[in-house]
Amino acid sequence: MRAKITLNFIGKVLIGMAVLFTFPIFTALIYHENILNFVIPQVISLIVGLLLNAIKYEKNSQIYARDGLKIVALSWIIISLIGALPIYLNHDAPYIDALFETVSGFTTTGATIFKDVEHLDKAILFWRGFTHFIGGMGVLAFVMAIIPLSTKNKSMHVLKAEMPGPSVSKLVPSMKKNLAILYGIYIGLTVLEIALLKIAHMPTFDSIVIAFGTAGTGGFSVLNTSIASYTTMAKYVIAIFMFLFGVNFNIYFLVALGKVKEALKSEELKVYASMFIVAVAIVVLNTVHIFGNTYKAFEEAFFHVSSIMTSTGYSIGDINVYPTTSKSIMLVLMLISACAGSTCGGLKISRLIICAKSIKRNLIKQVHPNAVQVVKFEGKKVSEETIENTNTFIFLYVALILLFILIISFNGYNIETTINAVFTTFANVGLCFNIQNFQEFTVLSKATLCVAMLLGRLEIFPLVSLISDMRKE
Amino acid sequence: MRAKITLNFIGKVLIGMAVLFTFPIFTALIYHENILNFVIPQVISLIVGLLLNAIKYEKNSQIYARDGLKIVALSWIIISLIGALPIYLNHDAPYIDALFETVSGFTTTGATIFKDVEHLDKAILFWRGFTHFIGGMGVLAFVMAIIPLSTKNKSMHVLKAEMPGPSVSKLVPSMKKNLAILYGIYIGLTVLEIALLKIAHMPTFDSIVIAFGTAGTGGFSVLNTSIASYTTMAKYVIAIFMFLFGVNFNIYFLVALGKVKEALKSEELKVYASMFIVAVAIVVLNTVHIFGNTYKAFEEAFFHVSSIMTSTGYSIGDINVYPTTSKSIMLVLMLISACAGSTCGGLKISRLIICAKSIKRNLIKQVHPNAVQVVKFEGKKVSEETIENTNTFIFLYVALILLFILIISFNGYNIETTINAVFTTFANVGLCFNIQNFQEFTVLSKATLCVAMLLGRLEIFPLVSLISDMRKE
Repeated sequence: MRAKITLNFIGKVLIGMAVLFTFPIFTALIYHENILNFVIPQVISLIVGLLLNAIKYEKNSQIYARDGLKIVALSWIIISLIGALPIYLNHDAPYIDALFETVSGFTTTGATIFKDVEHLDKAILFWRGFTHFIGGMGVLAFVMAIIPLSTKNKSMHVLKAEMPGPSVSKLVPSMKKNLAILYGIYIGLTVLEIALLKIAHMPTFDSIVIAFGTAGTGGFSVLNTSIASYTTMAKYVIAIFMFLFGVNFNIYFLVALGKVKEALKSEELKVYASMFIVAVAIVVLNTVHIFGNTYKAFEEAFFHVSSIMTSTGYSIGDINVYPTTSKSIMLVLMLISACAGSTCGGLKISRLIICAKSIKRNLIKQVHPNAVQVVKFEGKKVSEETIENTNTFIFLYVALILLFILIISFNGYNIETTINAVFTTFANVGLCFNIQNFQEFTVLSKATLCVAMLLGRLEIFPLVSLISDMRKE
Repeated sequence: MRAKITLNFIGKVLIGMAVLFTFPIFTALIYHENILNFVIPQVISLIVGLLLNAIKYEKNSQIYARDGLKIVALSWIIISLIGALPIYLNHDAPYIDALFETVSGFTTTGATIFKDVEHLDKAILFWRGFTHFIGGMGVLAFVMAIIPLSTKNKSMHVLKAEMPGPSVSKLVPSMKKNLAILYGIYIGLTVLEIALLKIAHMPTFDSIVIAFGTAGTGGFSVLNTSIASYTTMAKYVIAIFMFLFGVNFNIYFLVALGKVKEALKSEELKVYASMFIVAVAIVVLNTVHIFGNTYKAFEEAFFHVSSIMTSTGYSIGDINVYPTTSKSIMLVLMLISACAGSTCGGLKISRLIICAKSIKRNLIKQVHPNAVQVVKFEGKKVSEETIENTNTFIFLYVALILLFILIISFNGYNIETTINAVFTTFANVGLCFNIQNFQEFTVLSKATLCVAMLLGRLEIFPLVSLISDMRKE
């Protein structure tokens, strides 16, 4: 019975995917490119989707937390498998590479297997950017926003399972309205970025794809040099928008309602901004001797800290020349990333704050065993359950990193590159110190990193729940 | 009032130190070396110790958990400062280097600042090994075992603060008897090792110093080649004893009582042995192509895994040639280390088990919110407080690693070496992949690594409590 509602939901996701394939088909038509590469997966999605959608489930069926996790995990796996088809059908890459690229796209990682992206079809370039844009807010959220759902209030658990951060705060009582507001902010900011990039003399096509990559904090570009060849203004626009997409979207909602003061009170925002400023300052001081002047060092540091901290992964120069201190800071920023409720990957700053406060509380307890201490975040008491879940998440996060490092170590790269490859995929960043692309990795490594990207984007629990479920059955 | 009992206790520790200096003085006399280098610090210890010991405190004064932490932290800092004097007075090294060497000794790290140890006085070599032997079981435990204490049952908190692992289990009701049993096991095993090393054709002096280094899981040697120049039998004896000193001493107590079956039931022991076997197997498979034959690869892997997992740090060959997989495994083993209640550094396996079980419990809770799950370890229920403390410890452990990496990164080594230098000192291992000794590090790095070694050995809380105390006053 529960399986039926799950399959029905996945059917809806596939129908949604079929709708989404229309955009790259449209692009292919404009540039007179092969549309079959997109039409074939579209038809497959549609047929399978309609078949699954026809599955009837009992009217009283509820989607519980557990089902939500399962639906999200299965959906992401399926859309990645289908989303890889255009790249594969266009003979751009073997299937495992196409899959890596697509998982990297949907999870907004931005790590590429292409040595040369400039030879790709425009429609493929668009599709790569578009996967970032869809993946950023969540594939299912996208589907739920465009497909009429008969199941009222049943989808909250799906949304919860897909949204980044320790908890989804409802802005307004209706989930549908919630989604509409979030998508409004998302699309609004993206359109604004496209406009500003146009003003900064970027070609329209590039502006759209790169704005998609910024919005989803992905990092796929249309040039082999990433962002380095564009104007200084374009670089600053992108750097600023990367930072903006790292902010919790609730903040924008508050700003839109005119509650600017309340928005600026956000603890997470303050920590995010402070960490950003401190990191930029240290990197500037640490690299100014390399660039010869403070202005250039600032431009590089501002861009790259923004890019890495928001898990985007665009670059405007060679980050390999950075000294160990800057590299270490960037590796740590990769893991932490930006705010919950944004499109970023990684741990999220709110988790770090909750964890730090619970540590402080426990240390005080050790010295004053009878002191009753409550952990507060954003002015509200944090439940013991949330603290427990946050700590569990962080432990799993670290344990998985160690496991991935072990597997990737078989690839024979040195420790720095191995660690970096794991961090950059698991935290959905995409930028790596010693390697330009992931083509040279073994199939085992590519498959492992695909799992790492999905676990990172879906924040571990959905996939873990799927695996533990499969073991039982 | 509370300060008085603390100072009085530290006075006793210093008197204990004065007694301990007799051993290297005796060594210096045998080898006709300068005894003044040891007599001067001995006299200083004795005078200051007697003065502090003369401080009267109220009869009813109790040593609380907090005082225990403070006493331990202060004692370790003071004995390190004084213990560095022989090396400094003998003109072997500048004071910061002598301090690094001594902290490395007492914390049983075994990282050295000497490029050439073979030119050192025998008495200095003995003193280095002896600091391992004292530090292994705990400096204060040593003092409490040899100095008559008027404060009955007041010292449990001191012992607790100094002993490695999440909790000190009392073997017998009397703390003094407890200590006597533990020291009996410790000295017994050490003497057995010395005997076996003699049989393996090792010179007597070397046998004693190296048995000290093994017992304390330290790693200071008397030759520049560490253990590489000794016989194969000596290598195996040391490898096996390193493993044995990584076992919780309670196990030996049970064995001594004839409860072998109960001893073998230990969860921690099983996990320790399993991890050890798996690690050796992987490293052998991963390195057999380097050594050309399985026998040699096994000897190297067996020795180095034992050395690193128990945080000892002896070596019998160049571990730099190991592939990334083996290096990664060794880095992870460094952090985890062996059993609680042993002389090892690192996280301890029991913490890992408790943490893993609490994660599992929380994951089950997420799917079945109403399931009541109890975390059990070694057949007993683990209190929520212990779980909380364990998790807090692990978080602090990781946070400190990141902080140390940041500071050491200023030294300009690459990321691999930087990470390794931090792991090897913080986990009290002492063996590093790309550097033979720590002489070339800056004073800032050396001072930071001294703090790292102390924090690692004392398991963070004592020093944290000392710092938070100083901030208040």
